[in-house]
Amino acid sequence: MDVAIIAIGDELLLGSVTDTNTPFIAATIDRLGGRVVYSCHVADDPSEIYSAIGLAMSKADLVLTTGGLGPTKDDITKEVMCRYFGGRMRHDDAVARHIEDIFRRKGLPMNDLTASQAMVPDCCTVVENAVGTAPVMWFERDGKVLVSMPGVPREMRYVFDHEVVPRLRGYYDISSVELHHRFISTEGISESDVNTRIEAFEVSSPLRSVHIAYLPQTGYLKLRMDAEDAVLLSEAESLFCKEFEEYVIFKGDITPAEALLNRLREAGLTVSSAESCTGGNIAHQLTLIAGCSDVYQGSVVSYSNEVKMHLLGVNASTLDSYGAVSVEVAREMAEGVALAVGTDCSMATSGIAGPGGATPGKPVGTVCIAVKFPSGTVSDVYHFTGGRSEVISRATVKAITLLIRGLGCRATGLS
Amino acid sequence: MDVAIIAIGDELLLGSVTDTNTPFIAATIDRLGGRVVYSCHVADDPSEIYSAIGLAMSKADLVLTTGGLGPTKDDITKEVMCRYFGGRMRHDDAVARHIEDIFRRKGLPMNDLTASQAMVPDCCTVVENAVGTAPVMWFERDGKVLVSMPGVPREMRYVFDHEVVPRLRGYYDISSVELHHRFISTEGISESDVNTRIEAFEVSSPLRSVHIAYLPQTGYLKLRMDAEDAVLLSEAESLFCKEFEEYVIFKGDITPAEALLNRLREAGLTVSSAESCTGGNIAHQLTLIAGCSDVYQGSVVSYSNEVKMHLLGVNASTLDSYGAVSVEVAREMAEGVALAVGTDCSMATSGIAGPGGATPGKPVGTVCIAVKFPSGTVSDVYHFTGGRSEVISRATVKAITLLIRGLGCRATGLS
Repeated sequence: MDVAIIAIGDELLLGSVTDTNTPFIAATIDRLGGRVVYSCHVADDPSEIYSAIGLAMSKADLVLTTGGLGPTKDDITKEVMCRYFGGRMRHDDAVARHIEDIFRRKGLPMNDLTASQAMVPDCCTVVENAVGTAPVMWFERDGKVLVSMPGVPREMRYVFDHEVVPRLRGYYDISSVELHHRFISTEGISESDVNTRIEAFEVSSPLRSVHIAYLPQTGYLKLRMDAEDAVLLSEAESLFCKEFEEYVIFKGDITPAEALLNRLREAGLTVSSAESCTGGNIAHQLTLIAGCSDVYQGSVVSYSNEVKMHLLGVNASTLDSYGAVSVEVAREMAEGVALAVGTDCSMATSGIAGPGGATPGKPVGTVCIAVKFPSGTVSDVYHFTGGRSEVISRATVKAITLLIRGLGCRATGLS
Repeated sequence: MDVAIIAIGDELLLGSVTDTNTPFIAATIDRLGGRVVYSCHVADDPSEIYSAIGLAMSKADLVLTTGGLGPTKDDITKEVMCRYFGGRMRHDDAVARHIEDIFRRKGLPMNDLTASQAMVPDCCTVVENAVGTAPVMWFERDGKVLVSMPGVPREMRYVFDHEVVPRLRGYYDISSVELHHRFISTEGISESDVNTRIEAFEVSSPLRSVHIAYLPQTGYLKLRMDAEDAVLLSEAESLFCKEFEEYVIFKGDITPAEALLNRLREAGLTVSSAESCTGGNIAHQLTLIAGCSDVYQGSVVSYSNEVKMHLLGVNASTLDSYGAVSVEVAREMAEGVALAVGTDCSMATSGIAGPGGATPGKPVGTVCIAVKFPSGTVSDVYHFTGGRSEVISRATVKAITLLIRGLGCRATGLS
């Protein structure tokens, strides 16, 4: 199943918003064994949309579009599709009632613009959008399908998962071509070094027989192995983990935060964080994971020295002698938060995220990280590249990775 | 200047990564007065890249590509461009020395794959990439330009801002066509209602004479007004702020967190947060803003009741009588963190981000928010839609917005 994705909206070409719909759809299509062969962004312009549909229909069996269905006047997608598939616009009572229901529930007044959303092409099947007012439209021509979905990510994701994918499974013989995937995340090795070492294996090796996608993430390298043969895939995965043992931090399509929570859960340990330069991002990443509360207890964001002293018990003398950005302060922060919150483990960061704040010997990107284990505390100073948000992200991943690694091999690296 | 953007990489069509390069480039082109007419994602496939370049060159005067220049074997972009522009690959000594320097500085070993990055087409001008190993290539044909940039966001942004844009300003007569923009963020009113009320103005009104782009964000609605006439734009902005006074939360191309920090700075006040369901995201959003430390002091992420009691001084009796998810607890959290951290203002959240944790009368999405001002504390219970991360984001924006609004009109809404 070759698929094309068209994201519609001036805002995409103006760069005002980042398109998260296309990667969401593409990832699902990929898991279904389909192949996204083309993806584009077009403005809310009739002729641009029309030609994009033409090109997409010529390249793919299935065309999925997002956006261009909102209530404001610049949304003309429905009319264009109606013209492309040779139909007329008609008023759909069911859609109208659905829209009225939504507005009644929200206690909002209807207006003409919203009411106009009940107009749909007579040449498509209307699929209900349970979470929004914009209808989902399913067009068919010459055995090819075009499905138009709303652009609001929450609505698009819901209708795609709950309405569109089940219908696609029925329309195409999808299950039979499903690919198997394995995800492995590594840290401390470059994409090209991984690739070079894999290329050095025999061509007949499982590692050379599976497709490997390199997915660089901020602070670590994620790889995805694909194969139709599940056994071959398992062999390739174990071979990889053996070859790159010192670099592998976790397996599975999860985030470092999720991997850490799983590791803590297995070990029956709890965690907290004391954050200066990461400013609460470690806590945020951990609490984004549902069900974190059994191992994650809390954090202190200690931006000022006063908070470091009063809430974390960092000694004034340590701050005076070494400065806030020091491994000594980071260690006291880590041990202080574990005591204050009452956890077995903790992570602490103190650094210079930039762009300002650099001091002689401590350039922007300098971050001191301490990680407390039941058996002791490790700490070191790191230098991260990039802008402020990137330094924050890299320091966050590094702290989480240090704890994951330490829990993986308790015997080593701890004083 | 009509512009096309091509983002190259299997990972984009696999949905493994979100393309943030295209919106970054598009936003800059837009500010320069250019128009992005087309944008697409193509796989690391020679024929796909070749045809995408052909289509882009036919639609635009300037084609900007990102990605497909990394060291791993699937990167064939350079060869395709070399073929398209009719040249031969050659070894570039300067690029080679630059790559060796980078590896020496990082203390990493060179390998053949990386060395191959020194091969470039002889039909392009090589522009140095000061922050990475992949060269930037500038091709010209029939008065049209194609610039190939690396896909790593940090590298792409640096070379685009520091190398490509200055050269574009020289090549095209850009400055003369620059558009003016104004950004306004509103909360509590729908895109269609804003649009309907604007449509009700005289056609001759400044509000009808400027272009308005609706940029819905999670938890609020951002609008951008565009016009070549700066005076007209100012008139439209003031007219908008007057008409939608009760909904406007801040002006400018900034985030709610940035707007709050500015407001606090003006008022000479400091802030902290006590976060249960937002899990540190309020702190994270505030600390993403450089220079926040003059008004932001710290936060406590109190996931467990123990932390609420021990670090924030929430009374056990309040937790027992009303439960953790209650305005009573949220108020004590807000007042507790302001006292513990020593700030004039604070925000507190306690709620159910989901998917689990719902209780009778407290469905997923229920969030109690308390905001402390120097003159008193306000609190209320809110119900947010969406998944876990969306509930966290919406609660974060709501807490920040409540504080911004309260600081804007101290006289009202405070007990």
